[in-house]
Amino acid sequence: MVFNGGYMGQILRVDLTTKKISKEELDEKSAQMFIGGAGVGIEFLYNEVKPKVDPLGPENKLIFSVGPLVGSMAPCCHRMAVVAKSPLTNTVGMALSGGDFPAELKFAGYDALIVEGEAKNQVYIWIHDGEIEIRDATGFWGVQTLDTQLFIKDAINEPRAKVACIGPAGEKMVRYACIINERRAAGRMGLGAVMGSKKLKAIAVRGTNKVKCTDETKFKEALRELYDAMKESPVLYPAFSKLGTAMVVERAIELGIFAAKNWSATGVFAPVESIGGEAQEKYYTIGRGACYQCPVRCGQRRYVKSGPYAGFITEGPEFETTYSFGSMTCNNYLPAIIAADRLCDEYGLDTISTGVVIAFAMELYEQGILSREELDGLDLRFGDHEAMIEMVRRIAYREGIGDLLAEGTKRAAEIIGKGSERYAMHIKGLELPGYDVRGAKAHGLSYATAYTGGDHGRGYAIQEIFDTPVPYSVDRLAIEGKGKLCKWNQDVRTSVCDCMPFCAFVFDMAIAEIALELLSKFYGSLTGFNITPEEVEKAGERVNNIARAFNVREGFSRVDDTFPKRIMEEPIPGGPLKGQIINTGQLNKMLDEYYEVRGWDKRTGAPSRKKLEELGLKHVADELARLRKP
Amino acid sequence: MVFNGGYMGQILRVDLTTKKISKEELDEKSAQMFIGGAGVGIEFLYNEVKPKVDPLGPENKLIFSVGPLVGSMAPCCHRMAVVAKSPLTNTVGMALSGGDFPAELKFAGYDALIVEGEAKNQVYIWIHDGEIEIRDATGFWGVQTLDTQLFIKDAINEPRAKVACIGPAGEKMVRYACIINERRAAGRMGLGAVMGSKKLKAIAVRGTNKVKCTDETKFKEALRELYDAMKESPVLYPAFSKLGTAMVVERAIELGIFAAKNWSATGVFAPVESIGGEAQEKYYTIGRGACYQCPVRCGQRRYVKSGPYAGFITEGPEFETTYSFGSMTCNNYLPAIIAADRLCDEYGLDTISTGVVIAFAMELYEQGILSREELDGLDLRFGDHEAMIEMVRRIAYREGIGDLLAEGTKRAAEIIGKGSERYAMHIKGLELPGYDVRGAKAHGLSYATAYTGGDHGRGYAIQEIFDTPVPYSVDRLAIEGKGKLCKWNQDVRTSVCDCMPFCAFVFDMAIAEIALELLSKFYGSLTGFNITPEEVEKAGERVNNIARAFNVREGFSRVDDTFPKRIMEEPIPGGPLKGQIINTGQLNKMLDEYYEVRGWDKRTGAPSRKKLEELGLKHVADELARLRKP
Repeated sequence: MVFNGGYMGQILRVDLTTKKISKEELDEKSAQMFIGGAGVGIEFLYNEVKPKVDPLGPENKLIFSVGPLVGSMAPCCHRMAVVAKSPLTNTVGMALSGGDFPAELKFAGYDALIVEGEAKNQVYIWIHDGEIEIRDATGFWGVQTLDTQLFIKDAINEPRAKVACIGPAGEKMVRYACIINERRAAGRMGLGAVMGSKKLKAIAVRGTNKVKCTDETKFKEALRELYDAMKESPVLYPAFSKLGTAMVVERAIELGIFAAKNWSATGVFAPVESIGGEAQEKYYTIGRGACYQCPVRCGQRRYVKSGPYAGFITEGPEFETTYSFGSMTCNNYLPAIIAADRLCDEYGLDTISTGVVIAFAMELYEQGILSREELDGLDLRFGDHEAMIEMVRRIAYREGIGDLLAEGTKRAAEIIGKGSERYAMHIKGLELPGYDVRGAKAHGLSYATAYTGGDHGRGYAIQEIFDTPVPYSVDRLAIEGKGKLCKWNQDVRTSVCDCMPFCAFVFDMAIAEIALELLSKFYGSLTGFNITPEEVEKAGERVNNIARAFNVREGFSRVDDTFPKRIMEEPIPGGPLKGQIINTGQLNKMLDEYYEVRGWDKRTGAPSRKKLEELGLKHVADELARLRKP
Repeated sequence: MVFNGGYMGQILRVDLTTKKISKEELDEKSAQMFIGGAGVGIEFLYNEVKPKVDPLGPENKLIFSVGPLVGSMAPCCHRMAVVAKSPLTNTVGMALSGGDFPAELKFAGYDALIVEGEAKNQVYIWIHDGEIEIRDATGFWGVQTLDTQLFIKDAINEPRAKVACIGPAGEKMVRYACIINERRAAGRMGLGAVMGSKKLKAIAVRGTNKVKCTDETKFKEALRELYDAMKESPVLYPAFSKLGTAMVVERAIELGIFAAKNWSATGVFAPVESIGGEAQEKYYTIGRGACYQCPVRCGQRRYVKSGPYAGFITEGPEFETTYSFGSMTCNNYLPAIIAADRLCDEYGLDTISTGVVIAFAMELYEQGILSREELDGLDLRFGDHEAMIEMVRRIAYREGIGDLLAEGTKRAAEIIGKGSERYAMHIKGLELPGYDVRGAKAHGLSYATAYTGGDHGRGYAIQEIFDTPVPYSVDRLAIEGKGKLCKWNQDVRTSVCDCMPFCAFVFDMAIAEIALELLSKFYGSLTGFNITPEEVEKAGERVNNIARAFNVREGFSRVDDTFPKRIMEEPIPGGPLKGQIINTGQLNKMLDEYYEVRGWDKRTGAPSRKKLEELGLKHVADELARLRKP
């Protein structure tokens, strides 16, 4: 099989148990059906990871999947999907990361790297084009992520290498540990814990190949269209370049949906003047970092100049981190958010889950469910940023109560009991992002149904946040019509981006209306496989179906597509959206519409045979039937 | 003028006021008289920096001087001297650094870089072989040293560049701020403050030239001798490679000269089992770092695995840091020493001065001279490592009391008054290293007379610490004969190493007996200038003379060659050397002998015309005469 252009055509497989290293051809049909990135990664996961395996055991696999646009001359597409069964949710675990590592993996000649088994001793993988080594990492075990990258580049004597690695949290299998490359994270779902369970400290890669273009004229045309659209965007350069995702803080507060105090307070917490995007820009930003070849450079370098957190610097904090370590924990001292963000990066912790878990513990403490003694003496009150920062470390190192909280809100609540599950703000085990979905219903539906659990990244309903009219305008408070919108957001807005991959921010702010045409043009001109915009959309849908099938096979069904009780029983207590709720009836109505639009079984929430066969996934339909699902 | 081999022959001069960049030839005569490194740097300082200039003003110059051995195939010589008038002492400021930067500067084609003037806005210098740019550094101002290196490599898109930079402490002109390159420091004398006063954040360098060898056969012969001597050393690989300088902790405690509690306690403080080199190796070491091409790799990567300082990692702590943040502050919790070490590196602070200054403040607090209010509420007691760590940050950022302590013990005592000068453990303003000189008299004499002030690096009397018989055995407690020994240590053991440069540790542990022959062989085979071992020694002596002349010109004289009162009035209170002291009479006796051996004026301590002329420094003698010194 011959691959051109955007595909390298090679899958690198490293078995850490047997130390066997092998290369195989990427299947051409897979490449067209699933495009790349999350799609190709999840297909491998579905096909190769058997049901019910322990996510932290050797049977789980950790897949790094780039995609056809990666390494090309196009901007905003040099990303990778990291895929495994999630130790936090037991669903598909998938998270994307940018930075420089993904392009480097492509330049080394690979569309994906599949890590299997479990090393006996701590190791790292060194990929130098075609040469692959499994090397001893005992000298790097325990080291934080930025030092790890430096030490490993030093050890391989290749400063141009890029390194993806875990920190102490991944080593200790904190269930929401992330993987860090450069200053970017494959943040959610505990993929760092999977890496830690395999005793894989890091992957270093240096590649010297080039991505070829099959149809230069068409590619350049697409490139021009993309740059034009980016330039014309009223938001991308004027605001997003300067503010990063933190610019959404103001908007969420204005709408009254910036979830606060473990979702018990009105969504207008957090004085904009102290933690909003404008404040971050004005008082803390000193420069900007970027992913490979990105002209937008949204990675705002924010820096604490004085006070107890002086010296902390981060490319962030993002909107979600401002939520998790700000409004959620009632902390309005931005330097502490910056410090927590940096510490999470250094320890290798997902910032959303970490902050939400701490807010959960704060509420349990204030409710009297956890005593100060149980918190090892820490006076963990809402608003106490010192206690918050201290808890980040205890979680990363699983010290004392940190060991319990390292399990995530769902498992911790199960262990603690005493009604604590009411305060565990997660869906399927994944801690919730910062948009209060009681005031943004399609957003809520996507949280409830995303294959990764409570994840804003898998179907972000931007129409409800910024009134964007693509594919059409909606009333954020309406229940009706949200199933259809959610499907579009999941299939097009998200999955297509996850597969190419393409930056979801640039998608939203510059190309949403022309995305399918434009991305199919990029895809075609790079790979030589011409697929229509409709086929691109279909690929996005296919990914959501095979991922759903994976989850069904793991035992998930309609009953899991739900919210924490707080969302369904307690209305937003104040602010412009005071009184908003998503009760059981409303949720069911949205779900019915959603399954209908998706062609999924309304009783079980499983993809129907008809839908699967329509998507060319007959083998999946057959397997679900064998398992009597649905 | 044609230079061969080990000299590049080019001096790069960057005037930050005028933005003028120029290159000039290294003077051949200078190159032979002063060899390189500290020698060449101090000659520039003497010739170009007028008496009495403000060390933090634009008339001071900051000189980075490599040397003839740097960048060659020889190991343990890839170092640089950084030279300026010191803002801490007003004497010659000189400190050496290893790592990778010095060799890279040489590969770029320069024997020295002289930075003059003062930039209007914050800048960094980017040296790419012959291309030099002065670039805007406002986006890096405030950033800690490791991040700075990464950000700058990112900005110039050259991961192979090496970066020397300052942290927040240098920017804020803490008088003992250092310059960091990689994980190495030009640590002492406040050279980072000089860099900060020039608004120079960093120097990035990438070089692609090669150092040629004039006489390959002779060079290889010298190389073999060096490697053989290193291999045969009973200490170098068996102990030093594994333990680093921390191995000296045990020895100093055994001898009873590990200065403790601001020099008020017996020199046996600090339980060896918790902070000694063996403990550091056993419980904290996870790997090793090295300077360019060094097979010894003494940079012990020590790492805190758990507890409040979990995650801190450093290539150290060195012996001196174990003293300053350990015995001096009565802290026997090694993780706090590791944390303080890393923080000093990140902030860009000299670890010795910082710890000594904090110990000074601790004593003032316990003596009631500084109140808790004056310490901004900090309960800064001996042994309280949390308060110690907090104070490191306050000094780096000049917060509250930190602003005063950032001036160093000498100036702080002058401002505080109330008898506090008794507790200020410095010589000429430079805070004292960890060897209690009351029990090692030649060591003491070198502190008292070194051109840099209380500096163990400028005449380390290893004969008194490890009973080494080179050039001869001595009784560490004797007063007699120490003048001669001190001269040898300053001229040969130290200055020759400072000029080639060559690693003083490897000198001590492997080549002391053959050093002059070996280094003259390296020098000759690399440069083609054949100078005898005697001439090499003479060059070392020349450096100490011109440096002394610089200090004399600044107003220093015999009365400044002294100790803090505590050393001369309080005997060691316990341990094996209980009762030892260096009183005024003993000091004077040693000084008389020292000046005699040096050919210096006994009344003023200034070099005599005869000595200066003998060393080819007639112009120096003339200038001193013009200034009526002596």
